[in-house]
Amino acid sequence: MERKIYLSNTSLSRAREIFLQAALARKMGDEEIATVEAAGRVTSEPVFARISSPHYHAAAMDGVAVKAADTFGAAPTSPRRLRLEDNAFYVDTGGMLPPGCDAVIMIEDIFYPDKENPREIEIREPATPWQHVRSIGEDIVATEMILPSYHLIRPFDIGALINGGIFTLKVFKKPRIALIPTGSELVEPVDLPEPGKILESNSYTFAAAVRDWGAETTRFPIIKDDPAKLEAALLKAVEKSDLVLISAGSSAGRKDYTVSILEKLGRVLVHGVAIKPGKPVILAMIGSTPVVGLPGYPVAAYMALELFVMPLLYNWQKQTPPQRPILEAFSSRRIISSLKEEEFLRLKVGKVNNKLVATPLPGGSGVTMSLVRADGITVIPQDKEGIEAGEAVSIELWRTPAEIENTIVCLGSHDLSLDILNDHLQKQGLGYTLSSAHVGSMGGIIAIKRGETHLAGVHLLDPESGLYNIPYLRRYLPDMEIVLVHLAKRELGLIVAKGNPLGITRIEDLSRNDVVFVNRQKGAGTRIYLDFMLRGKGIDPALIKGYEREEYTHLAVAASVAAGGADAGLGIRAAAQALNVDFIPLAWESYDLAIPAFFYNSAQCKALLTVIASPSFREGVEKMGGYDLRQSGKVIWRQG
Amino acid sequence: MERKIYLSNTSLSRAREIFLQAALARKMGDEEIATVEAAGRVTSEPVFARISSPHYHAAAMDGVAVKAADTFGAAPTSPRRLRLEDNAFYVDTGGMLPPGCDAVIMIEDIFYPDKENPREIEIREPATPWQHVRSIGEDIVATEMILPSYHLIRPFDIGALINGGIFTLKVFKKPRIALIPTGSELVEPVDLPEPGKILESNSYTFAAAVRDWGAETTRFPIIKDDPAKLEAALLKAVEKSDLVLISAGSSAGRKDYTVSILEKLGRVLVHGVAIKPGKPVILAMIGSTPVVGLPGYPVAAYMALELFVMPLLYNWQKQTPPQRPILEAFSSRRIISSLKEEEFLRLKVGKVNNKLVATPLPGGSGVTMSLVRADGITVIPQDKEGIEAGEAVSIELWRTPAEIENTIVCLGSHDLSLDILNDHLQKQGLGYTLSSAHVGSMGGIIAIKRGETHLAGVHLLDPESGLYNIPYLRRYLPDMEIVLVHLAKRELGLIVAKGNPLGITRIEDLSRNDVVFVNRQKGAGTRIYLDFMLRGKGIDPALIKGYEREEYTHLAVAASVAAGGADAGLGIRAAAQALNVDFIPLAWESYDLAIPAFFYNSAQCKALLTVIASPSFREGVEKMGGYDLRQSGKVIWRQG
Repeated sequence: MERKIYLSNTSLSRAREIFLQAALARKMGDEEIATVEAAGRVTSEPVFARISSPHYHAAAMDGVAVKAADTFGAAPTSPRRLRLEDNAFYVDTGGMLPPGCDAVIMIEDIFYPDKENPREIEIREPATPWQHVRSIGEDIVATEMILPSYHLIRPFDIGALINGGIFTLKVFKKPRIALIPTGSELVEPVDLPEPGKILESNSYTFAAAVRDWGAETTRFPIIKDDPAKLEAALLKAVEKSDLVLISAGSSAGRKDYTVSILEKLGRVLVHGVAIKPGKPVILAMIGSTPVVGLPGYPVAAYMALELFVMPLLYNWQKQTPPQRPILEAFSSRRIISSLKEEEFLRLKVGKVNNKLVATPLPGGSGVTMSLVRADGITVIPQDKEGIEAGEAVSIELWRTPAEIENTIVCLGSHDLSLDILNDHLQKQGLGYTLSSAHVGSMGGIIAIKRGETHLAGVHLLDPESGLYNIPYLRRYLPDMEIVLVHLAKRELGLIVAKGNPLGITRIEDLSRNDVVFVNRQKGAGTRIYLDFMLRGKGIDPALIKGYEREEYTHLAVAASVAAGGADAGLGIRAAAQALNVDFIPLAWESYDLAIPAFFYNSAQCKALLTVIASPSFREGVEKMGGYDLRQSGKVIWRQG
Repeated sequence: MERKIYLSNTSLSRAREIFLQAALARKMGDEEIATVEAAGRVTSEPVFARISSPHYHAAAMDGVAVKAADTFGAAPTSPRRLRLEDNAFYVDTGGMLPPGCDAVIMIEDIFYPDKENPREIEIREPATPWQHVRSIGEDIVATEMILPSYHLIRPFDIGALINGGIFTLKVFKKPRIALIPTGSELVEPVDLPEPGKILESNSYTFAAAVRDWGAETTRFPIIKDDPAKLEAALLKAVEKSDLVLISAGSSAGRKDYTVSILEKLGRVLVHGVAIKPGKPVILAMIGSTPVVGLPGYPVAAYMALELFVMPLLYNWQKQTPPQRPILEAFSSRRIISSLKEEEFLRLKVGKVNNKLVATPLPGGSGVTMSLVRADGITVIPQDKEGIEAGEAVSIELWRTPAEIENTIVCLGSHDLSLDILNDHLQKQGLGYTLSSAHVGSMGGIIAIKRGETHLAGVHLLDPESGLYNIPYLRRYLPDMEIVLVHLAKRELGLIVAKGNPLGITRIEDLSRNDVVFVNRQKGAGTRIYLDFMLRGKGIDPALIKGYEREEYTHLAVAASVAAGGADAGLGIRAAAQALNVDFIPLAWESYDLAIPAFFYNSAQCKALLTVIASPSFREGVEKMGGYDLRQSGKVIWRQG
């Protein structure tokens, strides 16, 4: 079996320079299009007015057109008489002045001295020449340059062009992009996939992105892993395209023959760029057509698209890519980064106590939700080993600064109701959003202590008192003013496979030889509950198979059980129900929100508490099963 | 003749409040669309994943899938043997782990001990459970909320939705907008218009704008001034639209019956808003459909569109209109504003000597070029009488701050070559633009003195020395370091009607009784030349008819002559040629660029001088006729 394992580690700036230089040798031609369809297009040459606007002397008011000289000397005491259709003429705004007229008198200043003879009018003030007249060319003079070359046409430019007699004009063609998805495992997104099959989504993301950047797209059907088919598709694509994007197969694995085909048909400029995610990108030319081989992992692919394809497309249209706002924030934690690559980190950003705090989103280059949830990205240079907790980082925002200002940050334990809460908050229409990141209950308490969160979701059982949350807040935040608001009671229990084939009924069964467990991460309330129960029952965790395998959410635990990766996990009923597996109830736990006083008194918090108390939110959560929200919104404890 | 003259003067904030409250009673429904077509649309409900992603345990690397337990104890000194297709299985990245497997060993770490038997493999390190495995739900867990309500769908959201098994989803419908252009004088923009006819352009500007704001449009044919026809069109429009925009006829003049029809068919909420431009706007409802009557003047219409229609459309889609950047700049001159209205002023903005300077653009609500040329707008509140020269004003930018930084400001005399210069500068591709405003040669010198311009175009004849420009710079800028760069020699002369029917041949003819003159404004080099000639010849300006009528550009003078508004004017040959009128040459004058030293040494200026020296620029200017650029770019004088 032939296996090529090589990827260069070209720096991003060098790779981009090499690629753009080669690709921009290809020029975008221009085409003549109708002015009325030209919004968003870019002029390829200057546009000169064919006619003036107005193209005649026009009345600027409704009134009577006169020759100013005929009115000289008029005064209230010695009015001047004029005769309509003779030396005075009704004109409407925009209408043409009759020959010889050089002024308009407003209709309010016209008097009718003779009721019998409505053509007789009287003027009591002289008109000055050119008063209330829009003279020819006031707006645009024929032959004047209306728009220069390389001008992005906006709505009101269309008005100016038409007024200057321009009904068609030359604009750059839209770059034509061919999208070729590859991979035998891929299926079209029309039916839910069989196990082992992957829904093809990258080409649709690419298509939407490059259309935003001014291109038009042709998507090829999925090419199975067959070099001959890919070669045929590529040859067809380069014929009719300005740029070809190949999705997946850009790495150096068993089926990654894309690079050899590109070497055969053209020249590979770069294979492998020192960026993370996005390393296994291929930048190539077939004749005069640039070809980009994008990684199969969606986050890597999207980053490579922004870094290489976006600048090319804007450059072809002689435009500059839109700049995202840059903000400086403080990193909430230490982040390790490799010296091998420049790293593009997706982050959540929130403003707490007038301090912008950034928290990296979990997940590698396969986690599309890290793009969906990102508030922005930061770049860790190749020669930097990472970011210290509390270090200032420069963030390219994917949301507006106003949205960040209006974001309520909730670090702490994961609960499904938080997403529902955010949804209802958005619907409230005050512009607030809830951004929850899952760091476990203890992580949430520490975040409050450090001033990095507006509130924390907590469900921590105190083994001694049997109380939830309050003892922990007393112990870890003794000097802070805190309000504890109840959110929900949740049913906690063992999540087991459908039909419970191993007959698991209690905690003790977890140490059985035939049972594989899946655990939650350290610091999670559920983990603390488990360890408390194990200690109480004298069970050695070392006896539990899979005790060391940690998942970060209830849903991930249930998903693991559903897929047969584990036989049992500890979690909430709603998660089991969602994944259609069985649930052995053990206890009702209290999931509360710990809210520092500074935030409790804010408008944002009031909006949040209004939603929490609303019937529609409660129904939305209880519908999931295993939730009791009868007491939600109740202040159960205060300190300070 | 019935003439209603009334317009209320409702404040903008009140008018907007009244309108939005009524219009937003109408809700945008939702529709189910394909995910792959959903970019740019807005979710109307939360979207929950139907499947997990990955939906099976997948290999994260190309390699061999194993049960980790089978590899425990493996070491270089005691390798472990496995057998392919038995307890080890080739997997590609993304492929499904065979049942029982829980780890992947990278292909680099697989050894083949037995050449005869390629199914035998050797492992020299133990695998840890779940290494190189993307476990089920790593990205998305089934039932998880992928997107909340009211979420604007971005390209990578499409990828996440597909991965979660979402192939269709509910989004808000696009608001349907009917555009009704009205006015008997209007003609479609297909042929150049007859005198008295006006090209209909506003509806096309509106269509392009509201499409940017998320709507779809239906444009009605032009409705002549006939109340019955407008009524019929309105009834048809409200039936199928969420919003109707009527172009023109919103004022209170003779043919402005729009408001009475709206009163008959529905209710008029506001007629007349205290804004300038945009005052005569009508805000109405017919049943549940909002109707906006927009002014006929294009600038007024566009401002009203942004102020009333944009917030409605974004609100219907539960989005916030994009915020333009706000900058503070200093006003270069005193601006008077009425206490009757809130005034929206279009401005040029430039950064000179690290100071942002704003200069209002000339032209009233009929001058579309004041929108085209605007760098931004400022709002003068109703209770403010104006802006003092040097006062700080807050500007909503229509270009990016980077574009403003890269703008070369040229205040001074008008010359056609400056537009050509800007066009070539843009084509140079360094991102620089030339922004020229026409304040006359003396105005340009004063602007240099005040530090408000990078350079000034000047053509001032010194009557005593017969020299151009240098004596003026010596006199008015004695202490400044200045470089005078020659741009062009221009042929100056009398612009007269085609065929010169009055037989005008020299300056003396201007005082003839049968000749009407059109002048340039005070301070213009051409005006100074004229006054110098008149004095030299002992001609009293009072004898020249039209001496007091001032135009601001050569082209405007030529246009006035072309339209018969004047018999003669003084200007350059290129202007006469452009307007196809006759030209009587009088002299060659020197049009130069006065450049302060601080700017002369900048990168921007070097780029500008490179363009000035380029053959393509010279040819472009000389093609207009009456220009000699053989010496262009030559430094003709330096001071300091």
